[in-house]
Amino acid sequence: MAKVRVILGSKSDIKIGESIKEFLEKFGVDYDFHISSAHRRPDATALLAKNAESEGFSVIIAAAGMAAHLPGVIASHTTLPVIGVPLKGNSLSGEDALHSVVQMPTGVPVATVAIDGGKNAAILAVQILALSDEKIKQRLKKFKKELSEG
Amino acid sequence: MAKVRVILGSKSDIKIGESIKEFLEKFGVDYDFHISSAHRRPDATALLAKNAESEGFSVIIAAAGMAAHLPGVIASHTTLPVIGVPLKGNSLSGEDALHSVVQMPTGVPVATVAIDGGKNAAILAVQILALSDEKIKQRLKKFKKELSEG
Amino acid sequence: MAKVRVILGSKSDIKIGESIKEFLEKFGVDYDFHISSAHRRPDATALLAKNAESEGFSVIIAAAGMAAHLPGVIASHTTLPVIGVPLKGNSLSGEDALHSVVQMPTGVPVATVAIDGGKNAAILAVQILALSDEKIKQRLKKFKKELSEG
Amino acid sequence: MAKVRVILGSKSDIKIGESIKEFLEKFGVDYDFHISSAHRRPDATALLAKNAESEGFSVIIAAAGMAAHLPGVIASHTTLPVIGVPLKGNSLSGEDALHSVVQMPTGVPVATVAIDGGKNAAILAVQILALSDEKIKQRLKKFKKELSEG
Amino acid sequence: MAKVRVILGSKSDIKIGESIKEFLEKFGVDYDFHISSAHRRPDATALLAKNAESEGFSVIIAAAGMAAHLPGVIASHTTLPVIGVPLKGNSLSGEDALHSVVQMPTGVPVATVAIDGGKNAAILAVQILALSDEKIKQRLKKFKKELSEG
Amino acid sequence: MAKVRVILGSKSDIKIGESIKEFLEKFGVDYDFHISSAHRRPDATALLAKNAESEGFSVIIAAAGMAAHLPGVIASHTTLPVIGVPLKGNSLSGEDALHSVVQMPTGVPVATVAIDGGKNAAILAVQILALSDEKIKQRLKKFKKELSEG
Amino acid sequence: MAKVRVILGSKSDIKIGESIKEFLEKFGVDYDFHISSAHRRPDATALLAKNAESEGFSVIIAAAGMAAHLPGVIASHTTLPVIGVPLKGNSLSGEDALHSVVQMPTGVPVATVAIDGGKNAAILAVQILALSDEKIKQRLKKFKKELSEG
Amino acid sequence: MAKVRVILGSKSDIKIGESIKEFLEKFGVDYDFHISSAHRRPDATALLAKNAESEGFSVIIAAAGMAAHLPGVIASHTTLPVIGVPLKGNSLSGEDALHSVVQMPTGVPVATVAIDGGKNAAILAVQILALSDEKIKQRLKKFKKELSEG
Repeated sequence: MAKVRVILGSKSDIKIGESIKEFLEKFGVDYDFHISSAHRRPDATALLAKNAESEGFSVIIAAAGMAAHLPGVIASHTTLPVIGVPLKGNSLSGEDALHSVVQMPTGVPVATVAIDGGKNAAILAVQILALSDEKIKQRLKKFKKELSEG
Repeated sequence: MAKVRVILGSKSDIKIGESIKEFLEKFGVDYDFHISSAHRRPDATALLAKNAESEGFSVIIAAAGMAAHLPGVIASHTTLPVIGVPLKGNSLSGEDALHSVVQMPTGVPVATVAIDGGKNAAILAVQILALSDEKIKQRLKKFKKELSEG
Repeated sequence: MAKVRVILGSKSDIKIGESIKEFLEKFGVDYDFHISSAHRRPDATALLAKNAESEGFSVIIAAAGMAAHLPGVIASHTTLPVIGVPLKGNSLSGEDALHSVVQMPTGVPVATVAIDGGKNAAILAVQILALSDEKIKQRLKKFKKELSEG
Repeated sequence: MAKVRVILGSKSDIKIGESIKEFLEKFGVDYDFHISSAHRRPDATALLAKNAESEGFSVIIAAAGMAAHLPGVIASHTTLPVIGVPLKGNSLSGEDALHSVVQMPTGVPVATVAIDGGKNAAILAVQILALSDEKIKQRLKKFKKELSEG
Repeated sequence: MAKVRVILGSKSDIKIGESIKEFLEKFGVDYDFHISSAHRRPDATALLAKNAESEGFSVIIAAAGMAAHLPGVIASHTTLPVIGVPLKGNSLSGEDALHSVVQMPTGVPVATVAIDGGKNAAILAVQILALSDEKIKQRLKKFKKELSEG
Repeated sequence: MAKVRVILGSKSDIKIGESIKEFLEKFGVDYDFHISSAHRRPDATALLAKNAESEGFSVIIAAAGMAAHLPGVIASHTTLPVIGVPLKGNSLSGEDALHSVVQMPTGVPVATVAIDGGKNAAILAVQILALSDEKIKQRLKKFKKELSEG
Repeated sequence: MAKVRVILGSKSDIKIGESIKEFLEKFGVDYDFHISSAHRRPDATALLAKNAESEGFSVIIAAAGMAAHLPGVIASHTTLPVIGVPLKGNSLSGEDALHSVVQMPTGVPVATVAIDGGKNAAILAVQILALSDEKIKQRLKKFKKELSEG
Repeated sequence: MAKVRVILGSKSDIKIGESIKEFLEKFGVDYDFHISSAHRRPDATALLAKNAESEGFSVIIAAAGMAAHLPGVIASHTTLPVIGVPLKGNSLSGEDALHSVVQMPTGVPVATVAIDGGKNAAILAVQILALSDEKIKQRLKKFKKELSEG
């Protein structure tokens, strides 16, 4: 079964990580989870991207704040779709992270969601996996229906 | 075979539309193409989203400027992954469109790419399709390799 | 008598909803009140707009945060004047919602008030209704006079 | 018949003025037209607002750039609905005018449209007038229908 | 002796008003003090500007938040130098008030100080008065000297 | 007679310098004129500020772009009122210069005018000089009157 | 041995000062420490820069908020590398200080680090000193290694 | 002799590259020059950083636009000082690149210069090299002197 790799740039972002994991579990999606800074552990982080496909992952979610390079660095090392979550830091209201995640150059896209949008990153991953997994698709449709009734 | 639906919010965005189509063709991906404003043609636009899955589409790309609601409106009507392209308008340097596309509420993500990033929207669509299409995956890996040599 | 339809995008915006209702009541204006997300309940939300005129409403007030599409989506489905209230969210100081509400394309205006400006949305609705309701006009003039004395 | 008063802050904004007038004429709405800076001609400008109602006007459109005080100043002198058009100047991409027009204090709303959105200001005025003018309402519905077919 | 007129746009800005008064008193400058909104009390506010010179005032300090029109409105009614203090409101970090105060059109300047910079508004007023008042000039030089030693 | 010292940060700002000079001459105000960067010629620039008062100047106008330190540096070396003109550079739409000029710390105000607002800097200087010069005051009142008739 | 001069613009920034000192001590780098505002104590501050080289300093770190001129003023008086730390103030989320520190004109660079990035300023200073000090280089490599393991 | 490695993220930035090279040559500093995108050629780019020290380089200059990750990625792979030049792209006035370059996390600083500030990057590199090269220091002092006379 397709899996999602979740990577946070810093231990301090753990709350966002929990919201990502909660939603992946809600849809019964397998995942692994790492804290690995693009700047402090560049080689280990690159390996997480390079090995993802061969280890059976289909989508990577990367969340980081400030000059949030993590999603872009991951995207540079894989052809899997990479979902980026810009995080609000101590200054600039999260605009710095948003710019750093979304403004990727031609050839290396990052699928960016809202600032602090961990849940939506998980849902976007589920939407991608649902394209080739009927069970997940059904859960997704049920979720969509509940949203509209909520 | 999986297909991509491409929707522009306005005729004036046709140049971005061409760059999206060019890249989809480069990867041999089938697509259809519409100009349909979320604000001027809300019902027709909603139908493009609602019918996409049953018409055999797997991914939708939506590009719009200013208060760019098109990608979010499309996403509200489907569980398919929706890729949003914020376009630079006459004022505010494209920041208005970026905010309108990326800051979606929990439950309805839009996979946002860079301002005017039509080509990356196409590549992200290709990355998603490649998860279940070996031929596209090979083309994508070749493209990635060429990028690194270019 | 002319009525105002008030729609919030989310339960979490209830405080702004209260301030809108308080001011409409102060001027003796009839209204109904809904919480209906443009993204989570697109069809139900569209109906609130489509049916507004035939149900006797003259003005619609819509308040939402982040990529605040609600006012624009409402405006796409009616020729009634739509008043939009951008709400301050968790990040970007409300600038995202402001851009998403005000930067509407030609043909589909939203009458935008200040960030978190629920009271002013109500007053603007009252100003519009006062054009054809002498009683409301008198109350409005009294309010204006009190403002200048306050 | 209800009329619209159109006021520009400066001769240099004449192009926006033309687009406002063009749309008002398109809907057969009577209007008068002034160039009157809130800062250079404060008393004359105040009179345009104070006298508007007694002279038979129902809506005022005011367009200005930079620290665009004109719409707010007009709104301070009347209980008629005032529509503000922030104009893009030489610097700051129009964000200065947007902030100056939309961020009005409680009690004195300005119905703000997009930066350089003269046409939408006219349409919003038409939407307000249509509430009590069946002929204009029919033209508006025809316009809305054509939009969706365009 | 030359005097300073201090005007706040709202009772809620009283703390800034206190800091302005404290510094004027520190330099022995006479002043009067008003709370008078440009939007809620336009005529009374205009009179404060129009009568200032004949009432013996030399400088006017005006402080306001959001779409802070007060300083510009005051400046439109007098040839006295007007010092504007943009105030930080609930959203947009004070950038809305800064834009509304400083971006005045040619012919009607406002001498703008920092966001929430009430003390500096007072000092700037003192610097202007010191040009023709030897006693104030000596106090100012003493203050400057203490600053550099502090 | 009181004089104005005009300082530009760079030769490339000469056009703004001309507009300042033109308005000072229009009001018959004496001035001298310097191009002296705060960063490239710090000591010479400091002397222009330190000596201004003893050389008979009453007001200093300083114009600069980017990290526009010139007005603040001038203000640190004198108790004369300093008027700052932030200039629009190649990037950031002039917001960088605006922030650098206006956000001065307590004790050292700069009287900031609009981005590229050279003419208003001159008028503000004239307003200050007019407080103790009847001839200039009369010219200023005539100018104000013409503005309102223009 | 090469030394670092650390200068804060204000006593209120003392916490950032402590983080700078802590990291310099961690690497065994000698430093001295000053609180000296560019605006309130311009001459004393200029001397700190002018004398730094002859007093045996190799790098200067300067931290300031708002219109943060301190790093640029220091850089104008020395050819030593100057590291600037923009500090988040009460408004504008630190963007004002960032613009004021980084946007220096050609000829006078400031090596700018993140908003409130005192620790990184210290590390950058250490990186520069390590170029000619083997002991510091070894500590730096150990630190880099620990980062990647942390 | 110490050398500078210059890396551009894209061929389209060649003009900035030329200005960097021109200034390094002016000071007689040896350098090599590469165009190597952090996103398109991540491994080759990482090697440029990893090998820099052993190949005799002392400082690295990296220039990139949009989500400008290049300087941060380089900094993650070396303990040499890295100078980052944010470049103005097609949208957002260069603010995206500025945020992406300067807002680095603790432990991995990038010495950021102004948007499009290639020349200042070169001068900063020269300032660092001058700390241990008397000949370069003399040229730098001569340059500083000429600046003040220019």
